[in-house]
Amino acid sequence: MPTPEQMIAAVHGYVAAFDAGDAEAAVALFAEDATVEDPVGTPAKIGHDEIRTFYTASMQTGAKIHLQGPVRVGEDYAAFAFQVRLNWEGKSSTVDVIDIFRFNADGKVAKMEAYFGPTNFGAAS
Amino acid sequence: MPTPEQMIAAVHGYVAAFDAGDAEAAVALFAEDATVEDPVGTPAKIGHDEIRTFYTASMQTGAKIHLQGPVRVGEDYAAFAFQVRLNWEGKSSTVDVIDIFRFNADGKVAKMEAYFGPTNFGAAS
Repeated sequence: MPTPEQMIAAVHGYVAAFDAGDAEAAVALFAEDATVEDPVGTPAKIGHDEIRTFYTASMQTGAKIHLQGPVRVGEDYAAFAFQVRLNWEGKSSTVDVIDIFRFNADGKVAKMEAYFGPTNFGAAS
Repeated sequence: MPTPEQMIAAVHGYVAAFDAGDAEAAVALFAEDATVEDPVGTPAKIGHDEIRTFYTASMQTGAKIHLQGPVRVGEDYAAFAFQVRLNWEGKSSTVDVIDIFRFNADGKVAKMEAYFGPTNFGAAS
């Protein structure tokens, strides 16, 4: 299994991918057959192609990720709270999200879940 | 299903139960057959009796819950980041945790998962 340091580095790599607008860097964190359920309750994106399409579209909104507090790390997971800041229909907006990454033995994200809903959207101050 | 307001109220009720040291108030938030996996990766506590035993022991450490940021709420879940402050072997300690509550149609917590690990323990400042 990956070490805590490796899992924390994957989270920081995810943040950096958004900072750079680099969808491929985000995709590279995931296993080939990974699932991304974002938000939880919607159909999962499955595999690199669907995940790439998803992150390419996400990053086109200019979305940036601002971590809130430490990454919570267990044997095979990282959980982290953050605020997304993006442009939505010409307005600066925010979304407060909690993500769970589940890692495989190779240190790749095998399963991602993003928790947020309508109450978590706001206008950027 | 419960409304977002009801799910947020359940989280605040959970915090209040710790503030009051009232294990029964915490148990009352859960379905009779609920599962509590705390931390994720350990055997789940199943049902009110096991959950009561667990929270009674937790609260005997003087643990209090300090929410960090807004509760993330979807169709049937609440996700929230917090810091636990407690006394551990005579020392003030902290644990940074993210919890996921999954609700049933009656608005009771059917499944709880707590995400944290060794890197999330600290000394209280």
